[in-house]
Amino acid sequence: MNEAGGTRRGGLVATPETLRRVFVMRENDSARETLVKYMEQILFGLQDFLRRHVGITEEVPIKELSSRYMDSTISLEPEKRLAEVITGLIKEIAPHAVNVSSPYFVGHMTGAMPFFMVHLQTIVAALNQNVVKVETSKVVSIVEKETLAKIHRLIFKLDDGFYNAHIQSPSTSLGGFVEDGTLANLTALWVARDRLLAPRDGFEGVEREGVPAAYKEYGIDRLVVIVSQLGHYSLRKSGGVLGIGNQNVLPVPVDRHNKIDVNRLRALLDDLRANEPKTRVLALVGIAGATETGTVDPLERLADIAQERGIHFHVDAAWGGPTLFSEKYRHVLSGIERADSVTIDGHKQFYMPMTCGMVYFKDPNAMDAIAYHSNYVARPGSVDLGIRSLAGSRPSTALILHGALKVMGQRGYALLIDHGIDLAREFALEIQRRPNFQLLTPPELNILTYRYCPANVQEWLDAANCEERRRITIRLNRGNMLLQRRQREHGKSFVSRTTLRRPEQRGGDMVVLRSVLMNPMTTIGILKEILDEQEAMARGELAKAFTV
Amino acid sequence: MNEAGGTRRGGLVATPETLRRVFVMRENDSARETLVKYMEQILFGLQDFLRRHVGITEEVPIKELSSRYMDSTISLEPEKRLAEVITGLIKEIAPHAVNVSSPYFVGHMTGAMPFFMVHLQTIVAALNQNVVKVETSKVVSIVEKETLAKIHRLIFKLDDGFYNAHIQSPSTSLGGFVEDGTLANLTALWVARDRLLAPRDGFEGVEREGVPAAYKEYGIDRLVVIVSQLGHYSLRKSGGVLGIGNQNVLPVPVDRHNKIDVNRLRALLDDLRANEPKTRVLALVGIAGATETGTVDPLERLADIAQERGIHFHVDAAWGGPTLFSEKYRHVLSGIERADSVTIDGHKQFYMPMTCGMVYFKDPNAMDAIAYHSNYVARPGSVDLGIRSLAGSRPSTALILHGALKVMGQRGYALLIDHGIDLAREFALEIQRRPNFQLLTPPELNILTYRYCPANVQEWLDAANCEERRRITIRLNRGNMLLQRRQREHGKSFVSRTTLRRPEQRGGDMVVLRSVLMNPMTTIGILKEILDEQEAMARGELAKAFTV
Repeated sequence: MNEAGGTRRGGLVATPETLRRVFVMRENDSARETLVKYMEQILFGLQDFLRRHVGITEEVPIKELSSRYMDSTISLEPEKRLAEVITGLIKEIAPHAVNVSSPYFVGHMTGAMPFFMVHLQTIVAALNQNVVKVETSKVVSIVEKETLAKIHRLIFKLDDGFYNAHIQSPSTSLGGFVEDGTLANLTALWVARDRLLAPRDGFEGVEREGVPAAYKEYGIDRLVVIVSQLGHYSLRKSGGVLGIGNQNVLPVPVDRHNKIDVNRLRALLDDLRANEPKTRVLALVGIAGATETGTVDPLERLADIAQERGIHFHVDAAWGGPTLFSEKYRHVLSGIERADSVTIDGHKQFYMPMTCGMVYFKDPNAMDAIAYHSNYVARPGSVDLGIRSLAGSRPSTALILHGALKVMGQRGYALLIDHGIDLAREFALEIQRRPNFQLLTPPELNILTYRYCPANVQEWLDAANCEERRRITIRLNRGNMLLQRRQREHGKSFVSRTTLRRPEQRGGDMVVLRSVLMNPMTTIGILKEILDEQEAMARGELAKAFTV
Repeated sequence: MNEAGGTRRGGLVATPETLRRVFVMRENDSARETLVKYMEQILFGLQDFLRRHVGITEEVPIKELSSRYMDSTISLEPEKRLAEVITGLIKEIAPHAVNVSSPYFVGHMTGAMPFFMVHLQTIVAALNQNVVKVETSKVVSIVEKETLAKIHRLIFKLDDGFYNAHIQSPSTSLGGFVEDGTLANLTALWVARDRLLAPRDGFEGVEREGVPAAYKEYGIDRLVVIVSQLGHYSLRKSGGVLGIGNQNVLPVPVDRHNKIDVNRLRALLDDLRANEPKTRVLALVGIAGATETGTVDPLERLADIAQERGIHFHVDAAWGGPTLFSEKYRHVLSGIERADSVTIDGHKQFYMPMTCGMVYFKDPNAMDAIAYHSNYVARPGSVDLGIRSLAGSRPSTALILHGALKVMGQRGYALLIDHGIDLAREFALEIQRRPNFQLLTPPELNILTYRYCPANVQEWLDAANCEERRRITIRLNRGNMLLQRRQREHGKSFVSRTTLRRPEQRGGDMVVLRSVLMNPMTTIGILKEILDEQEAMARGELAKAFTV
């Protein structure tokens, strides 16, 4: 309501005239300059801040920050000028946000972006298209379809004939953009559920009649989803949302490489077939880049099993999907092209801004199972992308990916992938070289886990009996938990932590430090500094915690 | 990979060096200038384009546009420089997108934004926080909680004590940001489902055990959701997704003011109680701004009924919610404060960029029913916003609304609301003044529907018998459908169309033109031009279509 260029002083007042001003395009040069000045302030105010603070955040506790944001009222008149809001964001909010673009931030699947992503996001915001329908997006819906085809082809590698037929077909869908990986997995399972419990003579399908009626019709007692114990929790959530029950998302143990234990999987399937004739498998899920360990399931073998038994095969490649760009490492995902559906996230290794989930289906008619229409949008036969989509209104995020693919090329993305995996291997060697650290899951992609464990404790552990081992593990768990938290609070660097499941006799569940390497500015030198800091803390302020 | 400031000519190549360049903050002044130049190009390139073309889109058919986007491959090396991608977006894509910010675009719930929204969106992109967890967002999660409290208070008007207790409480939630209104409605019904079919002795709840087990436990045959026939199609979709079956979203007829017929509603509830002892009502939904007609259900009366019968009362205020800012019109939503849950969209009448859905719960513990945890994020007891949320990774959209509320103030938004409703009333009078138009649903908020119907045909209709009336209606439906499409194709202005249900004896379902007035730059003069254009088409190129 009150742009800085204005002359209003003292109390701010909303009037139709100020209102109109903020909606009108900038007509004269001085008004334009103001607009650009704001943008400059945003781009450089933020960047200067981030450069000054190589660390990840200011050292102010959450509790203290919470006390600053306790106002539940909305002021009657405008409270601040835009310039003040921008300054506030840069000076009060940014310093206490997390500098996910720091090369010292190697803990989560969020990282630095190429700067042009911000420009592309700005274009998306300025155009403000809604791809739910062609009437509010027109060519942008068409560009989205082209983008979907490009990624579909990267995954499934079908032929020209296929893509020519479907790339712009209004009656088929190669996939869809969703909010994030959770909604991508949900959409994949939603489609799988509706295809399995499809309409047939006298039954209108699970979507229309509901899960109980569908079970009755198909003589089913339960549907199960099968995934390794490292499956993302969104799969459980999807089971809950879709009405099949999240306890029916069945975890299969992993082998010592953190991949689904195929023998245990076969045994489970055989057991279900033999002993639970009324249980049906909704989907077998392969993981291409486990959130905790970065490991990839043996997709070819899973594809074989799914094919043999006629099960929907979903691959959760939210993290690892873009590995397909790398000539050096794409073989790790071999078999993904045999999936029925694939999840892949744009805000992860496509380096797009938060958020962009995507789901792809090999069968371009698969999403018909979840088509919805209404009187005013998504009319049958239209190009409206809202017809086959969980969400209604959607931003034109595809424009960002479409532009990014052109600017980066396959090789640009491959360089990022290769850097991350190569660096993770180097980091693993460094961890192994240090006697007080243990590498726990070596990197298959660009994620690894390790923990701090003093060399003498490692010796004791090797010699310990079950009970002692358990006791020591509990102690180490607490130590590593404190270590991770303390390092985060110091604000200079950040690794995350998780808990890996391990049998009781081997010491039980284990708290580990987790490192995700997706920033091309992160070097082995920086990673050594991070280990140094951890070691200094573990020997200094946290020494007591590591005394067992 | 290749910024315009670079010197690379000829074939573009991705190298580690160019890669690093696009990730590094701009160090020197000339590199900075390039960044700003791009942003200037975006802001003004787009705006100049839009100013030159007051209309809504270029007159190129979808088919023709489709043929330009048929490339399913991703080039190996970079294909374009960023400058070229930006130019392409401005010169090739924008002209064929839809100028939703044109004051002549009065057809959908997408419109002009205050320019500062683009700036705020740019900040969100540049910070790239992920509010799934505090470790990737820190203060931004706290700002989100404050923002939720502000809107919660706008809706539910609870007291200071309540907000002081919950605004920053890590263990309760006042609501959540979701992708759009569909996901807000889905979340509301998901929570309602899980609270109704809650865990109890020997039963772990519907989320864990699934809908069939829950029905068995609770002795239920079906759950139903009740809403007027004008309910948004996302409610049906939610019924499908949640496993209760979309046929169990029961439409109640509307009265002649397009509000739910309360007598029919009571009769339905009585009938279910008397004749279907195994049917339970999951939720009663009141509409606060029907998508097609903008009408608002009698929320007080619905609240009474829901309260009497112990039913979850949800209000879908995706469109109308911000009417609460207007002293002049907020009374229309009276009763919304008695809802158990409310949907409200940021990208609609909060004038935020695509997209921002929100869902609010009066009970700050309601969302506990859908809490999920994992080992690496959303740990129990943490402030992680991902604990109670359908999506996992989420952008920090709340920052935009937080800033906008400060810049606009309640009165700023109220001016927008008042302008829209006042203008809609003026437009309704103008339609009534013109003998060849019929006003079909007068505006309660800022949406109305009408159709073109030559004056002589109106006379015939009045005198016609049922069969004739039906025949004439079919003719008029086709005429109005053509009229809407032709006007859209001409590209100067845009109204939408929908089909209103009407009994056969009154002529049957009726195609109507629908106008949504949310742009403060739209004037009655512009609306007159739009009617003039329609009239000219109906009398000229479409004359035959309107001859009955």
